[in-house]
Amino acid sequence: MIVEMKKGSTQQEVDEVVQRAKSLDMRVQLNLGTDKTVVAILGANTGKLPTETFAVLPGVESVSRIMKPYKLASREFQPEDSIFSVNGVEIGGNRIVIMAGPCAVESEDQLMKTVKEVKESGASIIRGGAYKPRSSPFNFQGLEKRGLELLEMARERFDIPVVTEVVDPHDVELVASYTDIMQVGARNMQNFALLTEVGKSRRPVLLKRGLSSTVKEWLTAADYILAEGNEKVMLCERGIRTFEDSIRFSLDITSVPVVKKASHLPLFVDPSHASGNYSFVPAVARAAIAAGADGLLIEVHYNPKEALVDGPQALTPSDFGRLMKELEAIAKAIGRSL
Amino acid sequence: MIVEMKKGSTQQEVDEVVQRAKSLDMRVQLNLGTDKTVVAILGANTGKLPTETFAVLPGVESVSRIMKPYKLASREFQPEDSIFSVNGVEIGGNRIVIMAGPCAVESEDQLMKTVKEVKESGASIIRGGAYKPRSSPFNFQGLEKRGLELLEMARERFDIPVVTEVVDPHDVELVASYTDIMQVGARNMQNFALLTEVGKSRRPVLLKRGLSSTVKEWLTAADYILAEGNEKVMLCERGIRTFEDSIRFSLDITSVPVVKKASHLPLFVDPSHASGNYSFVPAVARAAIAAGADGLLIEVHYNPKEALVDGPQALTPSDFGRLMKELEAIAKAIGRSL
Amino acid sequence: MIVEMKKGSTQQEVDEVVQRAKSLDMRVQLNLGTDKTVVAILGANTGKLPTETFAVLPGVESVSRIMKPYKLASREFQPEDSIFSVNGVEIGGNRIVIMAGPCAVESEDQLMKTVKEVKESGASIIRGGAYKPRSSPFNFQGLEKRGLELLEMARERFDIPVVTEVVDPHDVELVASYTDIMQVGARNMQNFALLTEVGKSRRPVLLKRGLSSTVKEWLTAADYILAEGNEKVMLCERGIRTFEDSIRFSLDITSVPVVKKASHLPLFVDPSHASGNYSFVPAVARAAIAAGADGLLIEVHYNPKEALVDGPQALTPSDFGRLMKELEAIAKAIGRSL
Amino acid sequence: MIVEMKKGSTQQEVDEVVQRAKSLDMRVQLNLGTDKTVVAILGANTGKLPTETFAVLPGVESVSRIMKPYKLASREFQPEDSIFSVNGVEIGGNRIVIMAGPCAVESEDQLMKTVKEVKESGASIIRGGAYKPRSSPFNFQGLEKRGLELLEMARERFDIPVVTEVVDPHDVELVASYTDIMQVGARNMQNFALLTEVGKSRRPVLLKRGLSSTVKEWLTAADYILAEGNEKVMLCERGIRTFEDSIRFSLDITSVPVVKKASHLPLFVDPSHASGNYSFVPAVARAAIAAGADGLLIEVHYNPKEALVDGPQALTPSDFGRLMKELEAIAKAIGRSL
Repeated sequence: MIVEMKKGSTQQEVDEVVQRAKSLDMRVQLNLGTDKTVVAILGANTGKLPTETFAVLPGVESVSRIMKPYKLASREFQPEDSIFSVNGVEIGGNRIVIMAGPCAVESEDQLMKTVKEVKESGASIIRGGAYKPRSSPFNFQGLEKRGLELLEMARERFDIPVVTEVVDPHDVELVASYTDIMQVGARNMQNFALLTEVGKSRRPVLLKRGLSSTVKEWLTAADYILAEGNEKVMLCERGIRTFEDSIRFSLDITSVPVVKKASHLPLFVDPSHASGNYSFVPAVARAAIAAGADGLLIEVHYNPKEALVDGPQALTPSDFGRLMKELEAIAKAIGRSL
Repeated sequence: MIVEMKKGSTQQEVDEVVQRAKSLDMRVQLNLGTDKTVVAILGANTGKLPTETFAVLPGVESVSRIMKPYKLASREFQPEDSIFSVNGVEIGGNRIVIMAGPCAVESEDQLMKTVKEVKESGASIIRGGAYKPRSSPFNFQGLEKRGLELLEMARERFDIPVVTEVVDPHDVELVASYTDIMQVGARNMQNFALLTEVGKSRRPVLLKRGLSSTVKEWLTAADYILAEGNEKVMLCERGIRTFEDSIRFSLDITSVPVVKKASHLPLFVDPSHASGNYSFVPAVARAAIAAGADGLLIEVHYNPKEALVDGPQALTPSDFGRLMKELEAIAKAIGRSL
Repeated sequence: MIVEMKKGSTQQEVDEVVQRAKSLDMRVQLNLGTDKTVVAILGANTGKLPTETFAVLPGVESVSRIMKPYKLASREFQPEDSIFSVNGVEIGGNRIVIMAGPCAVESEDQLMKTVKEVKESGASIIRGGAYKPRSSPFNFQGLEKRGLELLEMARERFDIPVVTEVVDPHDVELVASYTDIMQVGARNMQNFALLTEVGKSRRPVLLKRGLSSTVKEWLTAADYILAEGNEKVMLCERGIRTFEDSIRFSLDITSVPVVKKASHLPLFVDPSHASGNYSFVPAVARAAIAAGADGLLIEVHYNPKEALVDGPQALTPSDFGRLMKELEAIAKAIGRSL
Repeated sequence: MIVEMKKGSTQQEVDEVVQRAKSLDMRVQLNLGTDKTVVAILGANTGKLPTETFAVLPGVESVSRIMKPYKLASREFQPEDSIFSVNGVEIGGNRIVIMAGPCAVESEDQLMKTVKEVKESGASIIRGGAYKPRSSPFNFQGLEKRGLELLEMARERFDIPVVTEVVDPHDVELVASYTDIMQVGARNMQNFALLTEVGKSRRPVLLKRGLSSTVKEWLTAADYILAEGNEKVMLCERGIRTFEDSIRFSLDITSVPVVKKASHLPLFVDPSHASGNYSFVPAVARAAIAAGADGLLIEVHYNPKEALVDGPQALTPSDFGRLMKELEAIAKAIGRSL
């Protein structure tokens, strides 16, 4: 249930709404807009609560129900776009943000060479996996702590923020201490224990869409992070599972306008995992920007043929440089910058 | 099996290859390139034929097998893009072609008003359904012959080519006599009797992807038309059936680079049917152009609220005009025109 | 809209309802039950018609709307099971009906040997394809007319009804003249021209579910046949397209209780096409009977390794004989016979 | 890589194989069959290892590669069925095991009443959720620790084993201390941190199939548990996500013979979650037994209308009793007991 306060309502009036909600055993979350405050009343039983409960309180402009399963991620709760900064990089603003780097961190040499090149080509954030969720226990699982250390080294040396995946609620604190953005991968989109933990960390989070999750489920999963008071949530479309067999996943391009209409959260697109083949990445990357994505997550490897994980989908640094020029032209065409 | 002739091979040498194939009960199709000829040897049992059968003939450069299920639609058979003209409109070239108009032809007034506006906004071809394949026999099935007459009237009055759907092999001759391009709809993509008939007609055909067909099946369906000697085949991606429920179909944007790599046929995208909601159409249309589609098929209705079929997905003429300007900018950004 | 007449209503009263509907440009279909008549009022605009239009007429018990897209196939129109006879074989009754035979008719020898064996094992109807809808035009397309002649020969020699597929509206009359049941294949489930034609033929029809059709779309497709006055419609579940890659199609076993609850039409299951692998056929066949299917369609080939089409999914006659014994036990366990 | 030892090979010969593998940095798992030992050599790089490495050692019968992504779950590693006991209930044997109970534990009264009735009807194991993974953080999340205590109470009072879900690696020890079987839910099938933890616990685990996981991915996920030396793994098919909208998930009945052929692990089916509607549960349950499942997981609620979670899919105790009788007949028909 959404309680919209009047412009100029007092702190005391807002407090009264909050107290009323808490007295009814409801949870409360505030959106302090520039000119007015919105109070979300949350709980399993809000549906049974009459809107009058809050409508009669002083300072209340209107009370409405959010019929969607997601509440905090919705534009009903926050109409204006979420824009925030990650170590100096603005996310969700006019400028499109490119995160690039190897699928997995493999060695100091591999990481540093790749970071140097992608930064020169214009990437603003570095990606690299230290913990890799692999379908078999007998596959390479990432360098783990050593991978985090290398990422931190790259981050310092090239003065650029870093995003990496976290797979276990236990590791959240550790991963948060090394990186700027924690990624929750597609297979963990409904790992609610992990979502709660990254929510509590209050560090920026990139939440990938589950490979067979609807947009509604994805935004509802974001609510788990937002509900812990962590507002720095980015979404990332990475393709859904369909019957089509010429690619690994079908990138759901329509999710871009669907999400931007339904939610205030910044939206990224990962063309690499969806395609599973480097030759399709540029076309999908251009499409994502043209459709209105706020950024991209692109795999680049110094030597794709020797990559330990997902080599076939990685661009070389020079392919990446060419793609950046194409993306710049598309960004300009839709009135944005790169 | 693909027999590539040497540059400068003689007509007689080509004939000899053709005769050999026919003597083995195989079908043959020729691709007469500018500098060399390619002969496709077709049949259920080509797999059992040794390549030497043809490799030893004079004038033969090389013999190879097409491992894909589609043959004539493949770049192995024809490496260069198919470019052809439909009543003066070049298809598959640098210029992106926009087909626009109402889902169904409803009346003279509705059609003429819409055609006037979309042509002024820059559409090169008019779309409009006279025969509508509807899931229930009790729904509006289109104006049928009267619809064709109205389309022809619009075509003459505004001097613009027309595309319309044909649903029954019986009707191919009739529909062909009224329109410039015949559309085979998604539900008929594997209606092989219909494909054969439109193949025989030798008129331009727009083949929509089946809603649960793989790219391979789609290109193989195109082979049915090409096998009748009809080379004017256009493909149209219109979304596939997935679990996502916020839209009608999930537009498979990656099919654009996948098809352009695998096939020489021009590729269109229909953002209207995929989205099922006009508000998502512009983003998907921009994405399709950015990804490399050769054209779009867009539903425009003078008054979407009163449309007899699929109103919610139709743009108004003024929305369409705005979209055309956006598309022009995107086209320019990728080095094409609109 | 469903108009239920009172028990004992007169012919004149029914006629009055029919006339009123026709005067409003609606189509009408009657279900003459043993003790009362139900009139379906059909048309694109029945939703705008007040129920009072018919409720006030003499002899009318009640008027209700069918909210589902399918009307004639629904239990609202006909609550009791459809049971009918095909050349002496009762379909939809207590006894489960097994249709078996080769995927494609290949030769007299192949057909006769197979028919002899499957009949001895207890099959009541013979299946065999004369026209094969193949994804590529260069694959074996069936023996066509010669295949029909062989089927007729088998039918006479072994005194057993025959089912075969029809793929082109042109061929309906021809195919109907040779066989007892016409099959509309999965790829033609929404080939409305074909559905209308087999509807007009008034011959028994087996309508396979489209490989990505919902149950609702399938029952609505059945309405095309029923709307032509052809009441001998059987449905056949044959698996739907999903992401699972260990089999060709995922048999939707839950569709059995879903369809039996929603519709009065007899329901068959084809375990062969779904599995695409003979070793999974027996388990799926047993499951289908246990779930409540009225019959099965099973591929049996005298020598699966040499089958021209779909050999890997065919049972040998001896496997089939063993399976029949298993099915008999399951049928008995649920109070039916084989 | 699978090293099959000769019958009668000595402990020392087995040790030598193990040592050789470890010296190459490989992991090793043994299957001590009744008459011979099989050694699985596991690791990311076994593909590069020549089979001769082990073939030349004394006591080795044969060395082969497992081409499938799953190793320990495969029949290549263990040809005979896994059969084990959970507190006196044999799993994977001839007798079919029914686990039944409420979706969520709600209160002592609700749980005890339900357990009493389902036990009387023949259920061998009680199911009940204490931790519920819910898509929204604002929904009822289960009674958590209090739920575990109630389950333990039911377990003691009715002397029957209990299965309940664990959702967080942190909770594994706690949950294991209260229950007999830990369930890993569909949304956590690829939560590898959780799989590893339940593997380490060495307690029986029921691993549900992910809602969009292939059979291969599911069996490979089981390898995470088996790799920790926990051999008491049960699988549970619970429906996959498809386009069909009349039910919540499409139960993949063919996965029953597919899994039984590929793996030695016992296989359960959950007809309740797949259907999402109690009226379809009996048909699907019968089908699962007929197809060869080793057991079922069925939701039963004393008063489905007041259930806090998933009421519409729960059977009443009396419906459940009736179903058990039907299942008994089916079990007998296929030579098993209930």
